[in-house]
Amino acid sequence: MADARRDTDSPAPPGTGVETDVAIVGAGPVGLFAVFECGMLDMRCAVLDALDAPGGQCIALYPEKPIYDIPGYPEIAAGTLIENLLAQARPFRPDFRLGNPVTSLAKTEKGFRLATAGGGAVEAGAVIVAAGVGAFGPNRPPLPNLARFEATGAVQYFVKRRDDFAGKRIVIAGGGDSAVDWALSLAPLARGVAVVHRRDKFRAAPESERRLRALAAEGKIELVVPYQLDALEGSGGNLEAVIVKSLDGQTRRLPADALLPFFGLAQDLGPIAGFGLAIERNLIKVDPATCSTNVAGIFAVGDIAAYPGKLKLILSGFAEAALAAHAARAHLRPGEAFHFEYSTTRGVPKP
Amino acid sequence: MADARRDTDSPAPPGTGVETDVAIVGAGPVGLFAVFECGMLDMRCAVLDALDAPGGQCIALYPEKPIYDIPGYPEIAAGTLIENLLAQARPFRPDFRLGNPVTSLAKTEKGFRLATAGGGAVEAGAVIVAAGVGAFGPNRPPLPNLARFEATGAVQYFVKRRDDFAGKRIVIAGGGDSAVDWALSLAPLARGVAVVHRRDKFRAAPESERRLRALAAEGKIELVVPYQLDALEGSGGNLEAVIVKSLDGQTRRLPADALLPFFGLAQDLGPIAGFGLAIERNLIKVDPATCSTNVAGIFAVGDIAAYPGKLKLILSGFAEAALAAHAARAHLRPGEAFHFEYSTTRGVPKP
Repeated sequence: MADARRDTDSPAPPGTGVETDVAIVGAGPVGLFAVFECGMLDMRCAVLDALDAPGGQCIALYPEKPIYDIPGYPEIAAGTLIENLLAQARPFRPDFRLGNPVTSLAKTEKGFRLATAGGGAVEAGAVIVAAGVGAFGPNRPPLPNLARFEATGAVQYFVKRRDDFAGKRIVIAGGGDSAVDWALSLAPLARGVAVVHRRDKFRAAPESERRLRALAAEGKIELVVPYQLDALEGSGGNLEAVIVKSLDGQTRRLPADALLPFFGLAQDLGPIAGFGLAIERNLIKVDPATCSTNVAGIFAVGDIAAYPGKLKLILSGFAEAALAAHAARAHLRPGEAFHFEYSTTRGVPKP
Repeated sequence: MADARRDTDSPAPPGTGVETDVAIVGAGPVGLFAVFECGMLDMRCAVLDALDAPGGQCIALYPEKPIYDIPGYPEIAAGTLIENLLAQARPFRPDFRLGNPVTSLAKTEKGFRLATAGGGAVEAGAVIVAAGVGAFGPNRPPLPNLARFEATGAVQYFVKRRDDFAGKRIVIAGGGDSAVDWALSLAPLARGVAVVHRRDKFRAAPESERRLRALAAEGKIELVVPYQLDALEGSGGNLEAVIVKSLDGQTRRLPADALLPFFGLAQDLGPIAGFGLAIERNLIKVDPATCSTNVAGIFAVGDIAAYPGKLKLILSGFAEAALAAHAARAHLRPGEAFHFEYSTTRGVPKP
């Protein structure tokens, strides 16, 4: 790289403020593509995220998972998609402010002021909210002493490295796609996999459930149904067994080195709920022609944006990012004629 | 490939009819992605195009041109994008009917019947029009004997292979981005490049025009302005010179091996204008929530679709293809519950 610049390799020091054209709240795939779209329209961006790495759920939850519906990629791992989007945004030198949640938004004379937990504020003429499901975290099972097993990694909610589970006795809890998919994925390398679910029936893709039951019939996975998690056994954070209980009070002891509960994501709009935006069912209502919210100068894109016909697909978020960038430019520079050029004509800045 | 299937390598024999779920009119990037989106929703597609290769303008006009605004690709050649979209569509075995223009559309009991110039008709429950600018072709200059020079390739409207012009004396005509960009691109390898334009001022990106004038100042490109094409000299289809004329009647003779006129595309909706769709300024009006036209069961996506806020970007067309596919499924199978699954969960069919 030819020049020093502030990107994810050299994030803004905590507590430092900045003035920019557009503040993007959320560094997931759609937020990253918004940087590119704003850049193509000559707008600088600061990108804020509570997580300490860009990529949102793609990085935090399933970096190795293949995605099949990104146009032009028959298959791409979520982590690779994020790397590519970062490379695409890089010529526009986004100012990443990561691991630093936005705490509030206030209107100013020039636009908006976003305060962050780390103390640095971002002043921006426009705001694009690309916050996905908002702040997210796993739904944690209500078990005594859970935290001490979480601390050692004996209890994990997201599989970041599949190989970490080689040779281990694993208890998976849950009945949805994540539970079933990870059971299928880990069975070949684990010493044992037990799936605990409170019903007989799973809520997974039919083909996946069929494969799960086939492996159970072969004795390669144990289905512990209908049972619920009841307690954890072990000491010093080392898990020894998971105790489960049926609805009629019977208990079983499942020897285990690791517990992977897949009870879905707890979604929380957090401070975004205080931005003064029209919100319905935890989603921000936007005008589909511009992705503008009810507050002029604030736009919402990606999974957090709602409009008639909305599909919660990454590829839809990309198109919304383009709409929001164009509308943000018109908001920031009203009356300024814009000579539209295709990227093939104009190219991108060289690093 | 594990099984015989009808794809671009084994197109449908001319004159053969077919019944399918969705007929896609236009095999450009957005039409190809519509195949994938329909496939993910268990719908089979036939794809019709007047051109004899899939890819639309990306292949016919600029296969080697880099595109910078495909999300997740910092840069991709148009031809490579098409290859990747074909690979993404392939598991769903689209029935390609290429080099065979649609001539008419009629309503039937089950949906629609599309007749083609080759005689084979496609019967489909729904239609997605992804026809870009419609049938397109170059605006040809009104010169005597033009056809005989076109036949030998001495006059070309699209640069398919840049290397074909190495060591040649080239006359480029036109004042827009294509003329300027190709002058810049060909100057390093040509024996000479002259740019003929009827005005002093160009309509190209400012940065490109600046580079053009710099090369002209260095003597590497000759700017022949304000002049217009007047005649072609040569025999047997071999071009020897291009005669140009100024507005006040002065003529010049430019020795040349090749003439590249860049006077834009002639756009023609052609038979699509007879589909009974609401059309405004050569564009089909759609409901942005579904991409549905005024005719139930016919959808329009990509550059040919118009709605408030529409951006003519390939990436916007991708998102529209997803909307249209979902709406087409609801149209074809009304009342059928649909279990939405992310591609990460469901995967794609294995070849």
